Amino acid sequence: MALEGSILSEHIEGKLMIIGGAEDKEGECRILRHFVAEAGGRESRITVLTAATEYPRQVGAQYEQLFSRLGAKEVDVLDVCDRSQANSEGLVQQLNKATGVFFTGGDQLRITGLLGGTLAGRALHRLYERGVIIAGTSAGASVMSDTMIVGGEAGTPKKDTITMAPGLGLIRAVVIDQHFAQRGRIGRLLASVAQNPYVLGVGIDEDTAILVTENGEFTVVGSQTVTVVDASPSASTNVSESSPGQPLVLSPVFMHVLSEGYRFDLKRRVSLLNT
Amino acid sequence: MALEGSILSEHIEGKLMIIGGAEDKEGECRILRHFVAEAGGRESRITVLTAATEYPRQVGAQYEQLFSRLGAKEVDVLDVCDRSQANSEGLVQQLNKATGVFFTGGDQLRITGLLGGTLAGRALHRLYERGVIIAGTSAGASVMSDTMIVGGEAGTPKKDTITMAPGLGLIRAVVIDQHFAQRGRIGRLLASVAQNPYVLGVGIDEDTAILVTENGEFTVVGSQTVTVVDASPSASTNVSESSPGQPLVLSPVFMHVLSEGYRFDLKRRVSLLNT
Repeated sequence: MALEGSILSEHIEGKLMIIGGAEDKEGECRILRHFVAEAGGRESRITVLTAATEYPRQVGAQYEQLFSRLGAKEVDVLDVCDRSQANSEGLVQQLNKATGVFFTGGDQLRITGLLGGTLAGRALHRLYERGVIIAGTSAGASVMSDTMIVGGEAGTPKKDTITMAPGLGLIRAVVIDQHFAQRGRIGRLLASVAQNPYVLGVGIDEDTAILVTENGEFTVVGSQTVTVVDASPSASTNVSESSPGQPLVLSPVFMHVLSEGYRFDLKRRVSLLNT
Repeated sequence: MALEGSILSEHIEGKLMIIGGAEDKEGECRILRHFVAEAGGRESRITVLTAATEYPRQVGAQYEQLFSRLGAKEVDVLDVCDRSQANSEGLVQQLNKATGVFFTGGDQLRITGLLGGTLAGRALHRLYERGVIIAGTSAGASVMSDTMIVGGEAGTPKKDTITMAPGLGLIRAVVIDQHFAQRGRIGRLLASVAQNPYVLGVGIDEDTAILVTENGEFTVVGSQTVTVVDASPSASTNVSESSPGQPLVLSPVFMHVLSEGYRFDLKRRVSLLNT
């Protein structure tokens, strides 16, 4: 599988924390605690981006409180609500102070619609390149990849099961789905990778995250599972000839179900079970 | 994979039609029509076994009408409601007339509890061996295998996601799940095969069936998909050491998503895409 080097841009020094939604906010907060630690712990300056949500005040206040409680030095909530704001130097300067950026849930198209092709969008990429951790939950998880799932029904995988759109492109050749097992989304993830088996499908359960490191590997954090589907070995698919409502054919697909502490090499597409 | 000969008993001349539930009964009736044809069409004598359901009259009458409309020569509904009846020579003689047997849906434990270890149970195996097609939908599908799923929640695969029990054993080393994509059952199918990767998981969607032939292959019939999961390549699993509520690890699992007309070799565990 000649996918070496294709997952992350070159010269990336940051990490991604991609969360499947509904992460624990009341108990141990393993995922959010991990994020704060990766962002610098007591030295961290965290920027919360509420662009995805229709309730930026409530959601912003909740994460501000949480990250402060978990020991962050400074927490800023930035509610970007139009593209001119996303193009302002002031916003970019605020972003540039961050040692960790956190995208809340909501609607992924609000994030890309507001930030895509703006100075703030570019600043995010630069932050990530120079070592800042970028995290996102739910819609904030979906936007991480170059193509993202924006909608689709549960059930039998079909061509018209899903709608896709261009994401932020922090990670390449991967498509992320969230609330994965809880909302029965295996069918729509398979439909996504069937369209181009070069793309690896990563389904993340609630209260579960992947921490993607500079070397193109991820580690699972949280209480549930991460499911990886790799359709590149598939000998055949009917995706191009099938009519919209027709069920897909994909065989074989390599699947990996991983829980906390397990690692996966996104470039070689293998789990690192014994290392 | 040295699984040759393990799927079906030797000297089997019959076929199995294993239906994922909610098969079309009003439109083209592709699945039920196929069953009648395999049972002999205009020469068929079909026996409907309503043991699984709590509403044997209504369900029996419905299938009687359907199979007659689809051209069966004779349709008998047998409502086995206690084990002494299942041990009566009269019932066995009635069964022995059948050229096709059909198990309705309901509760799989009612079927095995009533028929397991009885003369009628043994007669079914002999019918199948000598060339009679045995079909079952929903609960009637689950009972086909030697170990069957009797309950379990949707969602993240966990050890305590499923409860299993001994089935009729018409097909071996396979575990069947039904209403598969519609009820988001991939997690419980994975949890089943994790317990013993020797067993192949077959998840059948609603209005979809597999027709298992004497050579240990199946062909998909119907409008949705069949998902096969093969955990035998898995390098590692945590099933034995994990505590009940802990999420499973399985990697890699080979998965096959197949729709109407596609074939699968249960012994070699490969799809026959190009034949």
